[in-house]
Amino acid sequence: MKQISISETVMFYDTDCGGVVSNIAYLRFVERARSALFAEMGMDIAAMNESQLFPAVIRTEIDYRFPARLGDVVNITASLSEVQKVKVTCEFRLWIGECVENGKLIAEAKQIAALVQMPSGRPRRTPSEWLGFIDS
Amino acid sequence: MKQISISETVMFYDTDCGGVVSNIAYLRFVERARSALFAEMGMDIAAMNESQLFPAVIRTEIDYRFPARLGDVVNITASLSEVQKVKVTCEFRLWIGECVENGKLIAEAKQIAALVQMPSGRPRRTPSEWLGFIDS
Amino acid sequence: MKQISISETVMFYDTDCGGVVSNIAYLRFVERARSALFAEMGMDIAAMNESQLFPAVIRTEIDYRFPARLGDVVNITASLSEVQKVKVTCEFRLWIGECVENGKLIAEAKQIAALVQMPSGRPRRTPSEWLGFIDS
Amino acid sequence: MKQISISETVMFYDTDCGGVVSNIAYLRFVERARSALFAEMGMDIAAMNESQLFPAVIRTEIDYRFPARLGDVVNITASLSEVQKVKVTCEFRLWIGECVENGKLIAEAKQIAALVQMPSGRPRRTPSEWLGFIDS
Repeated sequence: MKQISISETVMFYDTDCGGVVSNIAYLRFVERARSALFAEMGMDIAAMNESQLFPAVIRTEIDYRFPARLGDVVNITASLSEVQKVKVTCEFRLWIGECVENGKLIAEAKQIAALVQMPSGRPRRTPSEWLGFIDS
Repeated sequence: MKQISISETVMFYDTDCGGVVSNIAYLRFVERARSALFAEMGMDIAAMNESQLFPAVIRTEIDYRFPARLGDVVNITASLSEVQKVKVTCEFRLWIGECVENGKLIAEAKQIAALVQMPSGRPRRTPSEWLGFIDS
Repeated sequence: MKQISISETVMFYDTDCGGVVSNIAYLRFVERARSALFAEMGMDIAAMNESQLFPAVIRTEIDYRFPARLGDVVNITASLSEVQKVKVTCEFRLWIGECVENGKLIAEAKQIAALVQMPSGRPRRTPSEWLGFIDS
Repeated sequence: MKQISISETVMFYDTDCGGVVSNIAYLRFVERARSALFAEMGMDIAAMNESQLFPAVIRTEIDYRFPARLGDVVNITASLSEVQKVKVTCEFRLWIGECVENGKLIAEAKQIAALVQMPSGRPRRTPSEWLGFIDS
């Protein structure tokens, strides 16, 4: 299964006056992980700029499990969980600590993205080789 | 049913280089509508500052239906759809146009919030009068 | 002198864990006021979309005088203070209270914007009628 | 002279519909560099959390020289340029390319920060050893 991990340190601008990371800021962490995952799948930003083929997020789900705070190092694991004709599903786990099993789970998210050809905005078929990223 | 509507004009900072509103920016629109809805339910910011009782978002779902663009006036309707012991569910419709029926639906979202007593972070029961906001 | 005023209520996403409005968030308030000022000068977003002529910010200065907090209503006054061949200077005052004289000054900012023709990115001359917006 | 460098890749959420990095997004890059510089000076986030002594930005100046775009790797160099009794000045250069001399200068910024003791909000003297970070 295609999967990547990144780490991000919580900045002041990620937090709100509740003292914890704002529910909106987590989506920046998710976008960074999604970009890294698509790069791993052959769609890095240079490739997207050339092909003008972009993944457009059409659905986001996120469950906030435990608050992260200023200075926390948040690990984000992104994996490709489903490939359909014109869309793919990515799953994300955000956690603090040495490894995801022993760490503290901060949030879980899922995003569905559709491939869109710019500038027409027309949907495009997902590359057939992406199906191979799912098995086992 | 408790329901409010607000309008927001799309700013440059709400858009991304795809030419449309960023999937993250929609959550600012949702937060503004949620704040207005909670104010209508008796929890405006002054009341929250005094009671130190805050709604913490524990889940967000959002479906992006149609892209909004720079200068669009986005209407956001927020309604309270469920009241449970320690959490409530709010639903949001974002649309462009004269009315939600004839307008263009931009996005739909749902958020679940839990009431939290600060600074302890303990969950609190939802006010019993909120149940009355749901019927009919 | 061309001048406009707007008001914004501080949202959770505008604050950081210092309990006050983030230094970055003030620039959203400034951008909203700048957009309203340019609309007053004949460059609203519809006009910009048609002409493809946009003001690009080339310099920002901001002094943070006093912290604003969650729920504060921040008033922002924007005025056109200088018109040059290819750029204009806008000045901003952000304050809380009934009027700018008796209110609490939160921040002062200045932005220089150049008119840019898209998609070429070429600089364009400021409209000659804008000089009339400065005197007295 | 105390100086650090970091690199950031431009994400979708950093850009706006002009196709380039939003003038507001640059301040996130600056904040990341400022955090790294203060860590180098002995004030990392763990130390700040313990001492409750925080640098509050009281002035920002930023000149936008050349637009950065999606996927660009922006290098940010931050240096401590002045130490006064209760405030310090930091200078930032943002550039693209192999080195700052041969690279493309994207933006230059300056921030003045005052040390503030939380929760009282009282200003505090800058540590005397910081003067040693300036010479030569």
